[in-house]
Amino acid sequence: MSNIAVDETCSDAAHPSRPTVAMPAVETLENAAAMLRAAGDPARLRLLLRLVDGARCVTELAEAEGEKLATVSARLKLLHAARLVTRRREAKHVHYALADEHILRLIRDILEHAAEETHAA
Amino acid sequence: MSNIAVDETCSDAAHPSRPTVAMPAVETLENAAAMLRAAGDPARLRLLLRLVDGARCVTELAEAEGEKLATVSARLKLLHAARLVTRRREAKHVHYALADEHILRLIRDILEHAAEETHAA
Repeated sequence: MSNIAVDETCSDAAHPSRPTVAMPAVETLENAAAMLRAAGDPARLRLLLRLVDGARCVTELAEAEGEKLATVSARLKLLHAARLVTRRREAKHVHYALADEHILRLIRDILEHAAEETHAA
Repeated sequence: MSNIAVDETCSDAAHPSRPTVAMPAVETLENAAAMLRAAGDPARLRLLLRLVDGARCVTELAEAEGEKLATVSARLKLLHAARLVTRRREAKHVHYALADEHILRLIRDILEHAAEETHAA
């Protein structure tokens, strides 16, 4: 390995030998990235946030958002396809909920982080 | 409010009156969504994962990824712009680290969730 320090960078030899983090399977990484993209839209993130307190029916969510049922329903389907939310039918109700504790915590963490950064900026 | 039950949906009157979740500022929601999109790319997510054990120099990361320094440097700049990572210069080294505990937990949560879902599918 040559010792050319390019521009602002150090040479390879300058680092201690450290174990690298084990990488998950390609499929897992791609799924995780797709989940983050699904959540990475303000309108969809609002819907996820509305589920933080528990399951809600699609009609309730549309009312709370002041949006058409079809619009909100399409967003929820995308979140469901990404496995960020679960869906449960009960008579005429279609209840959506956050998939599990991972997603609940993720929503809280990213909003707390964004709020901190907004204030710090 | 009319009582028209459209297609698969319930009527408005069928829901208990529940308090809705308080929504953060528009700017906070948009920043949070942008952060999720920045993390929502397999190559960038790999870099974030490599920082779970602590700060790393950009040269180390490029070696670990088997990628060109310029490629990895561009990805890190994007993550830094989204405030998911911090950057610290020290002589010729440029160290990157996860921004804080929110981001550390988020990376772990989404990868655990994706791994569960991959196995369950």
